Amino acid sequence: MRAFKLTLAYDGSDYAGWQVQPAQVTVQSVLEEALLRITGQMVRVAGSGRTDSGVHALGQVVSFQSPTALSTETLRNALNAELPRDVSALQIDETPIGFHARLDAVSKRYRYVLHDGPTPDVFRRRYCWPVRQRLDCDAMRRAAQAFIGMHDFRSFASRWPDDVDSVRTISEITLQRGATPDTVDLIHFEVDGSGFLYNMVRSMVGTLVEVGRGAKPEIWPAEVLAATNRRRAGMTAPPQGLFLVSVCYPTGATAMNQQ
Amino acid sequence: MRAFKLTLAYDGSDYAGWQVQPAQVTVQSVLEEALLRITGQMVRVAGSGRTDSGVHALGQVVSFQSPTALSTETLRNALNAELPRDVSALQIDETPIGFHARLDAVSKRYRYVLHDGPTPDVFRRRYCWPVRQRLDCDAMRRAAQAFIGMHDFRSFASRWPDDVDSVRTISEITLQRGATPDTVDLIHFEVDGSGFLYNMVRSMVGTLVEVGRGAKPEIWPAEVLAATNRRRAGMTAPPQGLFLVSVCYPTGATAMNQQ
Repeated sequence: MRAFKLTLAYDGSDYAGWQVQPAQVTVQSVLEEALLRITGQMVRVAGSGRTDSGVHALGQVVSFQSPTALSTETLRNALNAELPRDVSALQIDETPIGFHARLDAVSKRYRYVLHDGPTPDVFRRRYCWPVRQRLDCDAMRRAAQAFIGMHDFRSFASRWPDDVDSVRTISEITLQRGATPDTVDLIHFEVDGSGFLYNMVRSMVGTLVEVGRGAKPEIWPAEVLAATNRRRAGMTAPPQGLFLVSVCYPTGATAMNQQ
Repeated sequence: MRAFKLTLAYDGSDYAGWQVQPAQVTVQSVLEEALLRITGQMVRVAGSGRTDSGVHALGQVVSFQSPTALSTETLRNALNAELPRDVSALQIDETPIGFHARLDAVSKRYRYVLHDGPTPDVFRRRYCWPVRQRLDCDAMRRAAQAFIGMHDFRSFASRWPDDVDSVRTISEITLQRGATPDTVDLIHFEVDGSGFLYNMVRSMVGTLVEVGRGAKPEIWPAEVLAATNRRRAGMTAPPQGLFLVSVCYPTGATAMNQQ
């Protein structure tokens, strides 16, 4: 048996999210079907985490085991031939047998893309949240600093108290408006953290947008956080603006030469 | 009666091109239907030129006349409310009555996007031609200089001799590889000219790609041009990489204060 780490990009527009569900097309299901056709065996894969319906990935990480004799490069090319055109295998590495994409993850990075231009962008409509009103990106950036550090984020979790523990650590947040004529109506929100509660990034963005619109003061997100009460936060931003950018692992978890 | 110049962006993926055709959804047909709903009257629009099925526009220009009393800004917002999400009204200006988007155009700019990275880009799959082999962008740029100036372009026209005159003037060509990690696998080909024959940009690109692959020498596009024979050129590049960027008019044609 061999173990693999697969890095995957997907356009989530036409999927019912990551996780296998009965009678739904999910990214996990099309990946497992492709692996079955390639290896001739049913392969169960583990993603670093679920992404919701309509959410995209630039670098989802997936672990799986297979007795295949194929090289990692051949396996990647075979996957790209078998996968639908909206899912792409970026890289495959062989790992120690114990590697698990979810259990071994130490941090994740998400991006949320906002569009605040006066007219809809037809080419980005699947990949951003069009907010028709100009946003104050600097005010949003200042307000977002409240999220950095270790906090109880239950105000930003849709399913609390399903999760036993709602304390997470955010190490970095950036908010940047595009600098070129082509990107000046786009704001990229990026957040790096030890883990995220259900809908946490999208409700953080929905809350910051209230500040960007001028509907709430800059101090408001800090107050929402301190309240530990979901009803205090802003709306949950729609899924199509959200991208799982990357997942980090300790070097030993994935490197074959550490075995 | 009032006359208008409308600048339109569209994602051509789901349309049978620009021009109204029986039993087909075209960009012109959805635009005329939206104008009918807004003004209550059938409005016939004229585009600066047809775009083929699957071809996109960043700045298609359209002229039409209507007795509507709506301001140009109200009209634009009404159009963006009525048009499908893959068509966007960027700007509307009132013009002298005689303005015609096709007859008055003095030049057009097209962009063709090539992707030559090792793995498919799921987010750009509708908006580029994935050429799986690395292309020599510098060699393509040098070879493309042969197209600049006034030439008989019948080697690059799919329907010659349907067109009476196949002489066109190309004023500028640029070929640029992206400079950021996100765009380094993209080559943007841009061409500015007095007019273009049917499939001319796409067959120029198909020809230059042969040079980029190393399959043909840099001098070959010049030889193809001189041959004035379509069978000498490379393949017609697929439609989804092509964008109509902008259309230029003499100031007097569109400016109300020139009347």
